[in-house]
Amino acid sequence: MQDRSRSKEETVDALHAVAAEMHDRMMRGEPPRMTLPVRSKKNIAFDEKLNVYKYGSKKTIRDATSLGSAHQLLRALHVTEFMEDMIESKKSSTLREMYYISEGWGYGKFGSQNESNNLAEDLEIVTGCLREDFKLRPEEDGARIIGNLTFQERNRRGEWMRINCRDDVGDSGYGVPYNVESEKLQLVEHDIDFMMAIETGGMFDRLVENGFDELARCGLIHLKGQPARSTRRVMKRINEEWGIPIVVFTDADPWSFRIFASIAYGAIKTAHISEYLATPSAVYLGIESGDIEAYDLPSDELTSRDIEALKAEKSDPRFQSQEWIDQIDLMLDLGKKAEQQSLAKYGLDFVTDTYLPEKLQQKLGLVIG
Amino acid sequence: MQDRSRSKEETVDALHAVAAEMHDRMMRGEPPRMTLPVRSKKNIAFDEKLNVYKYGSKKTIRDATSLGSAHQLLRALHVTEFMEDMIESKKSSTLREMYYISEGWGYGKFGSQNESNNLAEDLEIVTGCLREDFKLRPEEDGARIIGNLTFQERNRRGEWMRINCRDDVGDSGYGVPYNVESEKLQLVEHDIDFMMAIETGGMFDRLVENGFDELARCGLIHLKGQPARSTRRVMKRINEEWGIPIVVFTDADPWSFRIFASIAYGAIKTAHISEYLATPSAVYLGIESGDIEAYDLPSDELTSRDIEALKAEKSDPRFQSQEWIDQIDLMLDLGKKAEQQSLAKYGLDFVTDTYLPEKLQQKLGLVIG
Repeated sequence: MQDRSRSKEETVDALHAVAAEMHDRMMRGEPPRMTLPVRSKKNIAFDEKLNVYKYGSKKTIRDATSLGSAHQLLRALHVTEFMEDMIESKKSSTLREMYYISEGWGYGKFGSQNESNNLAEDLEIVTGCLREDFKLRPEEDGARIIGNLTFQERNRRGEWMRINCRDDVGDSGYGVPYNVESEKLQLVEHDIDFMMAIETGGMFDRLVENGFDELARCGLIHLKGQPARSTRRVMKRINEEWGIPIVVFTDADPWSFRIFASIAYGAIKTAHISEYLATPSAVYLGIESGDIEAYDLPSDELTSRDIEALKAEKSDPRFQSQEWIDQIDLMLDLGKKAEQQSLAKYGLDFVTDTYLPEKLQQKLGLVIG
Repeated sequence: MQDRSRSKEETVDALHAVAAEMHDRMMRGEPPRMTLPVRSKKNIAFDEKLNVYKYGSKKTIRDATSLGSAHQLLRALHVTEFMEDMIESKKSSTLREMYYISEGWGYGKFGSQNESNNLAEDLEIVTGCLREDFKLRPEEDGARIIGNLTFQERNRRGEWMRINCRDDVGDSGYGVPYNVESEKLQLVEHDIDFMMAIETGGMFDRLVENGFDELARCGLIHLKGQPARSTRRVMKRINEEWGIPIVVFTDADPWSFRIFASIAYGAIKTAHISEYLATPSAVYLGIESGDIEAYDLPSDELTSRDIEALKAEKSDPRFQSQEWIDQIDLMLDLGKKAEQQSLAKYGLDFVTDTYLPEKLQQKLGLVIG
């Protein structure tokens, strides 16, 4: 599947359609409205065709027959106008800036940041565009990449720059921009066999220092905890455009399982665009619950919050495979979690000399070194 | 002042001296010990010569006459050996990895991450070396820089790479490595009048998008909240080696004041190396307490935690100038704080067209554009 992003004109047309629908209903003497899918875990279902979790068919209608909903529709109109202005003037803004800009919108002013974030997602759902098409930027930094892969990024001046993520960057690697649509970022060439996504900065730097990218012919990408949309999109593009497997290397705890799930199956908040963010073929490499005992890793007791999260995962549609049920049950049985960096118990090279080669052979049949 | 970092040999000698002191005392039949300054706010004093806050003269002696202190000394010996190994094998490790590695040290095993972090700082104090000389890395990413300045960074292969922070990087900028000593990073050339340090990623990206680096002939550096040591060191080097002023642009809240103080006067945790991290001439540009009313900015009520923090700052030796007392008192009077991005109330260009030019004229006498 090609990376989806809308052209400037398509995006503006889609935003106009939101206003047009309201306008047309008003002209017919009906209250204006927006129709949205219900956004909860219960309304997520597995899409057999796309192989990711997507919203189900439950819909909610937001119309102007209550004051709260009328405010929401007014805000939606202000927001579409603001987005169109940004597209025209080649600007972008953070969700936080949009929230502050609404100070000037009278009754359309947002009551909280949460409201403006949700509305941005609502508009993605209604228009079929992405937040990036609307020129909305996240606050967080994008991922860092190290390895023998070459991108072309269009810089502020509109010029294409060619950057090899091994030869043209410092130790901190290539910083993925917030917008990785093909108009902004192109995948040029590579000489790697797989891409490894890594949860923590400490482990990313460990693999870089140990030269694992060259040893194992792979690209390394630092997820920075729960990965940003641009991080998930660039992994998906690498997987599809280059046909390269994505393997995920995280801590062993319930939150790391969720990081993997958002990469492979999509996240609840972005279930409407899972097919553009999720990489269903991604492989969970570790740390697995079983590794805690198999490698006798230093571990911590599960907290009550951890246990609660694991139990919630048992009813999460993304964790219904037998492998995940076993993984979760084993962690609950052990009552323990472990960090990636706990592998340092056996020295700084153990992860690259022993652990990862064993895992890559076991999961992908790859022989390293 | 030149950037201080110790050569490999000097660092190893300093680590040996720690062991030698213990050894010599034992040979004289005395209990081994380490002498350390008392590490609390009360023992910080302004150093007139260096123009930063430094530890005062209160000392504490850690000797092997109690079991706890004996464990600490044993740990110190294990740690010095580990550090020497890393220096010899050209490795580095995170503080977290060192904590896990101590699993193999028997009675020298750390009880908590906090203990290993503190010991690393103790050894800096005792040896006069920096954590970076010991090859200890932080977990967090370094800062990002955009602007017309050129560095040379020595990469993993030992080759020097020349990187211009405007022309040779993507939108995410140049990522500052964890180690910015002159053996790793060199300041080559620049064409800027000042360096602006920015607290939030949203505002950094705003200034980049608005081309403020070119408009105002400045370098932009993203602090990522409380700045990492490498971020503070690189700012200090830019200030001293290039003779360029550092201006700091943050939110208006007690935590932002502390960010500024750590840049200008040093932080309590790193008071032993303030003269290598702090830039005493750094200028606080805003957001100031007075700006909240002067620019009628969207603001939030101070929380009880904020108020407590402001009151603590009133007894912090770093905030005893009349300007800071006024700044803090005014915020307490208003009962309000404001974010950098609240300037978006007046549109996305207000910060670069109006606010920053006004502030730069007022504080530095600079006329922009």
